[in-house]
Amino acid sequence: MQLGRVIGRVWASVKNPGLTGQRLLIVQPVKADLSPTGKSIVCTDCTGAGAGEIIYWVRGREASFPFTPADVASDATIVGIVDEINTGKKKDPS
Amino acid sequence: MQLGRVIGRVWASVKNPGLTGQRLLIVQPVKADLSPTGKSIVCTDCTGAGAGEIIYWVRGREASFPFTPADVASDATIVGIVDEINTGKKKDPS
Amino acid sequence: MQLGRVIGRVWASVKNPGLTGQRLLIVQPVKADLSPTGKSIVCTDCTGAGAGEIIYWVRGREASFPFTPADVASDATIVGIVDEINTGKKKDPS
Amino acid sequence: MQLGRVIGRVWASVKNPGLTGQRLLIVQPVKADLSPTGKSIVCTDCTGAGAGEIIYWVRGREASFPFTPADVASDATIVGIVDEINTGKKKDPS
Amino acid sequence: MQLGRVIGRVWASVKNPGLTGQRLLIVQPVKADLSPTGKSIVCTDCTGAGAGEIIYWVRGREASFPFTPADVASDATIVGIVDEINTGKKKDPS
Repeated sequence: MQLGRVIGRVWASVKNPGLTGQRLLIVQPVKADLSPTGKSIVCTDCTGAGAGEIIYWVRGREASFPFTPADVASDATIVGIVDEINTGKKKDPS
Repeated sequence: MQLGRVIGRVWASVKNPGLTGQRLLIVQPVKADLSPTGKSIVCTDCTGAGAGEIIYWVRGREASFPFTPADVASDATIVGIVDEINTGKKKDPS
Repeated sequence: MQLGRVIGRVWASVKNPGLTGQRLLIVQPVKADLSPTGKSIVCTDCTGAGAGEIIYWVRGREASFPFTPADVASDATIVGIVDEINTGKKKDPS
Repeated sequence: MQLGRVIGRVWASVKNPGLTGQRLLIVQPVKADLSPTGKSIVCTDCTGAGAGEIIYWVRGREASFPFTPADVASDATIVGIVDEINTGKKKDPS
Repeated sequence: MQLGRVIGRVWASVKNPGLTGQRLLIVQPVKADLSPTGKSIVCTDCTGAGAGEIIYWVRGREASFPFTPADVASDATIVGIVDEINTGKKKDPS
């Protein structure tokens, strides 16, 4: 999975039927320190993430797992909203 | 999924039978602000996208989903034509 | 799919049985204007492509589709030989 | 597989049910000489790896194999903790 | 597939059961002229390749094909040892 920030949304009226009813969010990948890295991608979402939130997403074949048994033609899906990231530079709550 | 702009088309008479009858479009990946990024790819299409249109495509195993049950040997398929992109810099219609 | 030019061939006597009898071609990825980009890869072939030809290939799971039902352990297969590329800079024959 | 070092952890209360109960670790990819390379990723874990340990992970479809028959929507999973790396610059114990 | 040179080996006692008994080799990707390119990866092996040999490997889902029906959680497997590479700069033996 990769970390990212939701930075926008895409609207499309002509699309594959498997994507009907799916929100499409634009995600900017971020590093562990939340600085942006690499190019933005378009993700489906199974968490209800909103603009500005830090999330992580899966790509590839696994991106359609959350929608099983529907055949959603997605290769990138947000699967979690991040509460906290700990990289040893902050106090570890665990 | 990734955003891109249709910039051309490829013709091939010798090809895998699974690709017969499929239009092959050349897509230039673009960022959320529609500036080009990275190298162009060749996509199959299930939307009827035309030259100059902004689209998004899936790659990998999902790229053959829209053609099920046909076994189309494609790893990149256009699955939507973009109406509008909102990244917080324009008014949010939602 | 990505565009490429066939630039060579690989011989291997010790290999996975699933690759026996498969020609292995070295492909240099090219942009839509046919200039080289990125590093060369080794592809199986289902088209009979020869040295110097412009082709497109699929990667990933789809690369084994053309050989079904054989289990060819390939992640990159040439699936078409390009006749013409049109990117709006030449007259559009369509 | 790729080599990496565990550098942190991610907490998420809103997530795909398939990820419930899975620890999510932040991994910094490293080269064979253990110097960092590329951007960090978020991995599920099937080894019990801890902060600072050198591990290797699989990505893609294989990342959900260790959790079979559960459908874990992960595209990156730690599958081993490294005891020793030998690249010919140290004495070869084999 | 990609070309690479075997440059080392990894030992791990804690690992996914699906990797038990598998040799893990460190591979440096190389170009067609055998110069190194990109970062090293860890591969399983089905050829008996040794240190210094030029090989090619598959990545992704296909990397577990050579081990079927065993479920080896590998995303990169050496599938051939290269005898000769011909890129038109040497005499073509074919």
